[in-house]
Amino acid sequence: MRPQDIIRRKRDGAELSRDEIEFFVKGVTSGSIADYQSTALLMAIFLKGMTDTEQAALTQAMLHSGEILDFSDMPKPKADKHSTGGVGDKTSLLIAPFAAAAGVCVPMISGRGLGHTGGTLDKLESIPGYRVDLSLKEFRAVLDRAGFAMNGQTAEIAPADKKLYALRDATATVEAIPLIVASIISKKGAAGLDAMVIDVKTGSGAFMREQDRARALARALVTTGNSLGVKSQALITDMNQPLGYAVGNALEVMEVSQTLMNQGPPDLTRLSLELAARMIHLAKLAPTLDDARHLAENKLVDGSGYRKFKQVIQAQGGNPQALDKFELLPNATGMREIASPRGGYVSAIEAEDVGRASTIMGAGRDQKDDSIDHAVGVILEIKVGEKVDAGSVLCRLYYTSDEHVEEAAALVEGAFRISAQKPEERELILEVVG
Amino acid sequence: MRPQDIIRRKRDGAELSRDEIEFFVKGVTSGSIADYQSTALLMAIFLKGMTDTEQAALTQAMLHSGEILDFSDMPKPKADKHSTGGVGDKTSLLIAPFAAAAGVCVPMISGRGLGHTGGTLDKLESIPGYRVDLSLKEFRAVLDRAGFAMNGQTAEIAPADKKLYALRDATATVEAIPLIVASIISKKGAAGLDAMVIDVKTGSGAFMREQDRARALARALVTTGNSLGVKSQALITDMNQPLGYAVGNALEVMEVSQTLMNQGPPDLTRLSLELAARMIHLAKLAPTLDDARHLAENKLVDGSGYRKFKQVIQAQGGNPQALDKFELLPNATGMREIASPRGGYVSAIEAEDVGRASTIMGAGRDQKDDSIDHAVGVILEIKVGEKVDAGSVLCRLYYTSDEHVEEAAALVEGAFRISAQKPEERELILEVVG
Repeated sequence: MRPQDIIRRKRDGAELSRDEIEFFVKGVTSGSIADYQSTALLMAIFLKGMTDTEQAALTQAMLHSGEILDFSDMPKPKADKHSTGGVGDKTSLLIAPFAAAAGVCVPMISGRGLGHTGGTLDKLESIPGYRVDLSLKEFRAVLDRAGFAMNGQTAEIAPADKKLYALRDATATVEAIPLIVASIISKKGAAGLDAMVIDVKTGSGAFMREQDRARALARALVTTGNSLGVKSQALITDMNQPLGYAVGNALEVMEVSQTLMNQGPPDLTRLSLELAARMIHLAKLAPTLDDARHLAENKLVDGSGYRKFKQVIQAQGGNPQALDKFELLPNATGMREIASPRGGYVSAIEAEDVGRASTIMGAGRDQKDDSIDHAVGVILEIKVGEKVDAGSVLCRLYYTSDEHVEEAAALVEGAFRISAQKPEERELILEVVG
Repeated sequence: MRPQDIIRRKRDGAELSRDEIEFFVKGVTSGSIADYQSTALLMAIFLKGMTDTEQAALTQAMLHSGEILDFSDMPKPKADKHSTGGVGDKTSLLIAPFAAAAGVCVPMISGRGLGHTGGTLDKLESIPGYRVDLSLKEFRAVLDRAGFAMNGQTAEIAPADKKLYALRDATATVEAIPLIVASIISKKGAAGLDAMVIDVKTGSGAFMREQDRARALARALVTTGNSLGVKSQALITDMNQPLGYAVGNALEVMEVSQTLMNQGPPDLTRLSLELAARMIHLAKLAPTLDDARHLAENKLVDGSGYRKFKQVIQAQGGNPQALDKFELLPNATGMREIASPRGGYVSAIEAEDVGRASTIMGAGRDQKDDSIDHAVGVILEIKVGEKVDAGSVLCRLYYTSDEHVEEAAALVEGAFRISAQKPEERELILEVVG
């Protein structure tokens, strides 16, 4: 088998065999296939697509390129959650506690933020002491004791994905659905998951701006998840404004704490409960989806989600008191208010611009190895559909260095659209796939 | 400007600007663009194509990536010829003498054979002493004195093409018409050509097997040539059987000698005269194409083409007596006849198989750096449409080592189709483009 023959077949629109796909992924992992051959194939896949069969084979080959996490010896039903990434999207930190409190085992492998979107690991690391580099043994121990655990991808999980992602980034082949799906699912690195819920964001702050692209991605994720024996379901949700009010790592942890105490933003609370309920239902811990919704709500209202999160923080080396005493979290030293230039209704808040403003102040990274500042970010004071007066505060920027505050302020000011008429109400959950 | 943004635009089917194309070609030449970015763009170009404007810009950028040959100080009209490559295609060695004898200045930059097709440089090097590595100064001197000169591409001509060709070969992106055109025309490395004739081969032994692909390539070559101010014309010619009888370097030089003495195969003689005539006509040395045909024929019949070739052989360091005394050329030591298994008509001779047989015996190379044996090859005794008896000789293999003769014989035996009925006659010159 020669790489150029596989490239030629995909270039001509043929369906690659499982053997060809495995040969390619093994070659990428071992380095026996040159990077310049890999990228030619990636572009051919981008432009010619992949069938469901190829998609499943690619995902499996990437999953098997490294260590497989096997939790089959744990008696509880196992489920994971993935989001395609958004601004202010801290649902993982809520869903895992709710689902675990309801009896689901949640071995969550998460990522870091890149560009204008945040990452679960960065948010967790704003909690003093919280470790996301647990060994597999430690990860299992936390999972066994607390019912959920959240960790970073180790070097041993899906090494082919690491290599391919860097190449995709440099060659404008990131957005190909088969490559996204294989990357997402292989990174989970887990065998023996019973269920997976996926939150596919769409809108100005999302990776998939158009809803039809988001739908195509959701369908491919669900089909591929199911092909691996993991019962999968996806929600397509709105990312035309940030989720909740807080954007930035420690700020988002504070909002998570408030939400776990049932004092959080309605959109964040609702979406987290819905995703947790679907996870509980797919994991067969409730006979109907409505039963699962009640169960998840109970775990919020009775405070067991809140206690569960504290338990895991402690188990992963963090200080659980940080959830009550926000002064234990990294805190910004400067604050700047952004006022509305006129009265009217907020008709849009460009999520990408808010995310970028937060990143510019240090909350995120543009390059994989940039360091970040957990304290900084943006707190919205108002959301789409609400009425504002001229001069009333739209949001607050929190910063530790004023180096980039002007730039961030300009971005955020431009992100708010104020119109005379009340905008039409937008659905948060747009579609269910699977 | 970032390579990934250029890749993204081509991926999405946009027309690249001249600046973007120059940035890419300069980056390839200097190494500032990674090979894995180049190949992603090559695949995007393969699948999305290029407009005439992009095609012209790419060709010019590649031409300008290295040294430009400038013969504008020479008073005669200047013209070159290119063939896309075939089996037994030795027309360059005939056209250049005919055209030069008629007053055209022919600064011919040629290539070596690869795979089953031969290369002009290899054929010339079978003449003892003939140098194809002339310095630019030496090349000019020969051209000035004799009216034509034939040389290899120097490292300074179109270095971008050298690099891109190697990458194309490894990534199944060789056959993209915009890339072929830019490669062919940039390699000519010449400014100030007045005219160019191109022989685009089609059929089983050609790079472009299908006639519609050959036509598309011919059109792109002519359009791009004209865009550079070079009056261009292409013939699409049949390569479903070898051209002439001889395949293999020294064997082909012998056939060239016979043809220059007006004792060559009819197909080879006819095609060479037609291409020479079109070159003469495009170079405005004859008022009509028919006048140009008469002129070319005269240069054959009066022996001036023959004398011209001898003059250039001598000027390039070779022994001109080799054209008369074939024992001065490398000679094979073994010969094997291939007999017809039955009587009938020869309905096809698979040119690729004959070319491969010759290559296997050592006449060609599979890898760029393989050494070759100038003596070996195949001489056909019969061509398509002729009648044979059972046991009569179809062709002869000439070899110096019997290591691969069995394999070559099997290939050649399979190349001849013998049928009961006389096949329909095939046109040699199928179309004229431009």
